Formats: sequence, C-alpha cells, structure tokens
Amino acid sequence: MIIYFRAMRTKDDEKEAALFEATVKMVNEIGFASSSVSKIAKEAGVSPATIYVYHKNKEDLLVSTYIQIKVNMSEFLLRDFNDRLPIRDILKNVWVNMFEYIANNLEYHQFVEQFSNSPYSSLVNKQEVEQYFEPIARVLQTGIEQKILKNVNFDVLLAFMYFPITVLANPSICHNFELNKENIETAFTLAWDAVKL
Amino acid sequence: MIIYFRAMRTKDDEKEAALFEATVKMVNEIGFASSSVSKIAKEAGVSPATIYVYHKNKEDLLVSTYIQIKVNMSEFLLRDFNDRLPIRDILKNVWVNMFEYIANNLEYHQFVEQFSNSPYSSLVNKQEVEQYFEPIARVLQTGIEQKILKNVNFDVLLAFMYFPITVLANPSICHNFELNKENIETAFTLAWDAVKL
Repeated sequence: MIIYFRAMRTKDDEKEAALFEATVKMVNEIGFASSSVSKIAKEAGVSPATIYVYHKNKEDLLVSTYIQIKVNMSEFLLRDFNDRLPIRDILKNVWVNMFEYIANNLEYHQFVEQFSNSPYSSLVNKQEVEQYFEPIARVLQTGIEQKILKNVNFDVLLAFMYFPITVLANPSICHNFELNKENIETAFTLAWDAVKL
Repeated sequence: MIIYFRAMRTKDDEKEAALFEATVKMVNEIGFASSSVSKIAKEAGVSPATIYVYHKNKEDLLVSTYIQIKVNMSEFLLRDFNDRLPIRDILKNVWVNMFEYIANNLEYHQFVEQFSNSPYSSLVNKQEVEQYFEPIARVLQTGIEQKILKNVNFDVLLAFMYFPITVLANPSICHNFELNKENIETAFTLAWDAVKL
C-alpha cells in the first residue's frame, strides 16, 4: 500500500491521485461489486497494468483508498491541534474542522460509509486507522480522568461528539440545517452537553 | 368469496414481500446501478412482468422499497407510543425501540443510507415520509415550547437524539459497544443531555 503526499507530487503521484479519485467515483456510482479494476483504470485514464504496480488486486486498491481517506481526514481534523488548550476548545476545533471536511468531501464520506458496511472492512487493520486519530483518543482519555467527560467507552463518546456531523453536514439528509458558523457552534453545544460530565 | 379474496391477497402479499426483500438484498450487494428489474425479479422468484404489475419502473420499485422501510420503522418506533408520559420517557421508549430495530435490521438501514445518498432520494416526497414520524415531531415541538428541550431545529435534535444509534447498533462500525440493556440506557443519558435545555 502506497500513501502519497500532496506536496511532493510526481508523475507517479498524479497517477495515484487519479486512481484514488476514480476508485471513489466508481464505487459511489456503481457500487463495489461492479467496480472492476479495468473500469477504475479507464476512469482514471491509466492502464490496468498501472494499478497492479501499486496494488496487488482490487481488494488492496479499495482498502488503500479507504485508508487514504482516513489519513487525509485525520490530518484535516488535527491541523490546528493543540493539547494545551482546555478540553472543550480542543474538541470544538476538531468539531469545526470535521464539519468543513465532511461538507466539502461528501463523496469521500459516502465511500467510507459504504466501505464500512461492506465485507472489505474486515480487511482493514483497525489499529492502523485508529492510530491516525490517536491525539483525539488521548484527549478523551484525559477528559475522563479529569472528570470533565462522562466515563463511557470511546465509541459512545464519538457517536455523540462527532457522528452527528455526518448527517448535519450532508444537505441531502438534513434539508433544514444551514451550514453557517452560528449553526455549527449551536450544534456543538449539543455535542458538548452530551459528552460532558 | 371472502376466503377466496383473502387467499388471493395473501399470495400477492407474499410476492410483494419477496420483491421487497430481493430489492434490499440486491441493492446492498451490487448497488443501485447494477440492480436491474430482471435481476431483482430473479432473486425474488417472480417474473419481471410481476414487478410491473406493482411498479411502473425500477425507480418506482426503489422508492417504494425505501418508503416501505420508513413505514415499518416508524411503526416499530412508535409501537408503545403514549404522549401522556413525561417527554423524557416518550423519547426514551422511541430510543430503545430504535436500537432494537436497527440492530435487527441492519440490511434495511444500509439500504436507507445508500438510498439517501443516491439521486433516487430526490424522487421521494419528503413530507409523506415525515408524516409517519409526526408523533415524534409533535413531542419535540411540545418539549421546546415547555422549555424542556433546546430550541434548535428538529434536524439538530434528531441528529443527536437518534442518529448515534445507527452507529452504536452496528457492530461492523462500533466494535466495542456491547448491545445490552445497561449500555443502551447509559447511551440514552448522552442523548438526553444533548437535547435537554
């Protein structure tokens, strides 16, 4: 699996990027089963042989696309991370970043949702993915220890702290939620009230 | 005559039920684009002509499958609905029902998620669907007026009150959340804290 870096894009990186976008697009449009390596290659404008330079097989291509999205997302969420701020402020910064990320990358989010519900998700090393979000987990742990956050498992905290964003930032689900600063901040008060002790 | 009619209706109902299940199964397995009327008919064990007795076309079949899931879900959520109970108790009963519904019908939920992200969702009369959940909307409205719930739009209340269930009840996403009465009640305290004033 090859992870590319946007800043250092060479010709190979461009091919990888085209493959990444083509994989997301094809899967979202025609589903996992129909998204063959040859269709994805055609969409990306590369030869099928090129895909096999980077990826063992279709499974590997799908899994690395998923992990790539998770890496990009974690970088965006943590771009202004500062663990010396109060816990509420740290979580709020991540909240605002995640709103922006999801609203601007609905197609990646849709891929991730479909992937998570597919048999391919069993091929992912969950610990590898979790490590990208480790700073957030550390804040939650500190918050619990300092009796600022409720002492419930992280899945529950995250389901209330961040998961509601995935509907609120998706206009095809939430027709009545206007994405502006005030609404995003108001919605954060619900997230915070849910998780705080 | 009555017996004859009932027998006929039962046979039709069985065909409709088989079509419903086959549509959910095919879409979840191979996606919307590849799920042709003929493949769905084959999966349901009926002739394609039978589908056209009930549905104008593929779009109509998909939309009515979506609406059918929403109807079933609303009935299950509201099965013990009693609007003379305190608002917290009403919302908690819906919460517990929704946990049971999602955990036992992940395939329906997966269909709904995919459908909501697809172009077909624009074919749905949203007000028709909302009317099935109208008793819940009425409780939220009363809760806001009585200053029990936060005065934010329903999309925000629902995103925190019920949407987290769709991850918590899905073991392929939440690996660490055990579905038992105690955990479901604990998670409700987060939902309640989020929405209460």
